[in-house]
Amino acid sequence: MTEVYFLTSNLGKLREASLIAEQYGISLRQLPAKRIEIQSDDLARISAFSARVAARKHHVPVVVEDAGLFIEALGGFPGPYSSYVFKTIGVNGILKLMEGVRRREAYFLSVVAYCTPKGRSLIFKGRVDGYIASEVRGTGGFGFDPIFIPKGDTRTFAEMSSREKNLYSHRAKAFTKFFSWLAERRGNL
Amino acid sequence: MTEVYFLTSNLGKLREASLIAEQYGISLRQLPAKRIEIQSDDLARISAFSARVAARKHHVPVVVEDAGLFIEALGGFPGPYSSYVFKTIGVNGILKLMEGVRRREAYFLSVVAYCTPKGRSLIFKGRVDGYIASEVRGTGGFGFDPIFIPKGDTRTFAEMSSREKNLYSHRAKAFTKFFSWLAERRGNL
Repeated sequence: MTEVYFLTSNLGKLREASLIAEQYGISLRQLPAKRIEIQSDDLARISAFSARVAARKHHVPVVVEDAGLFIEALGGFPGPYSSYVFKTIGVNGILKLMEGVRRREAYFLSVVAYCTPKGRSLIFKGRVDGYIASEVRGTGGFGFDPIFIPKGDTRTFAEMSSREKNLYSHRAKAFTKFFSWLAERRGNL
Repeated sequence: MTEVYFLTSNLGKLREASLIAEQYGISLRQLPAKRIEIQSDDLARISAFSARVAARKHHVPVVVEDAGLFIEALGGFPGPYSSYVFKTIGVNGILKLMEGVRRREAYFLSVVAYCTPKGRSLIFKGRVDGYIASEVRGTGGFGFDPIFIPKGDTRTFAEMSSREKNLYSHRAKAFTKFFSWLAERRGNL
């Protein structure tokens, strides 16, 4: 069975990704190491750097995932710094910035980077388009879920069950691309 | 003459720091290399990491400077991500977040990190306390200068000459601490 190490301290993310990995016969283990995260406007550069440094240091294949909410009327803010922005100004700060703004398009982007100890990093992306709600709605999910409405629905992510949300999930899309690529590549070797 | 390399692509910062260095008989040269900047809520960790990586790679003593605007009512936002926030939501975004907020205390913090090729990094800080203005005022300076009023004044940084602003400057304070430490240490060796 192919083994891959997921560099994360977030057990929720680990569980979510493991469920997808199993469908492809891949064993995903947690790499409980310190992650070096660089500053960049580009999520792919951030996660690729982390995966490369960890794979070389720990001599195992490493996968890293990074995600952000990109609001078009705010020039992509909060983007790669979504978790810092969530901790400081929070969902109410975002709603205040969006007061009176008619263009409410936004997307969640997830980037999965994979690197072997001697290899170059590879990138897999998943994206879900939607809108910023005009008020906080729902209690499920986490982060900016209570103000994000995916296209084709009227509810925010926080008003859905995990199962419903996962049908749209940017993270599930990126991990599915990655694991299906890895399963196929392993078959070919 | 002691030589130190300043890892920056900002010629304005280089000029500002060089003027202070000269007063202490220190020659400051630009290190035109790529800077690795990590994500952290702590400016000292960000600049120390950059200085250490560059000093080891280029085998010279390296200095790095990082600064941010910390707004108390916003939990320290935009803090270490000030330049990204300036590029996306800008001064008007900050004013919108501060609409109706009475606690307007804020500070600019500058952190200078110094590292020799085999040494540990040392940190020197400079800070200026003040308030967020209720509207954009003045055309001088850069970044968040048009909305920052230092304590003891009624004008924003953007309404002052460079010379007046430098009397308050967090960056000048941090560099003065560093160069005076370096000059004294050099004298002792």
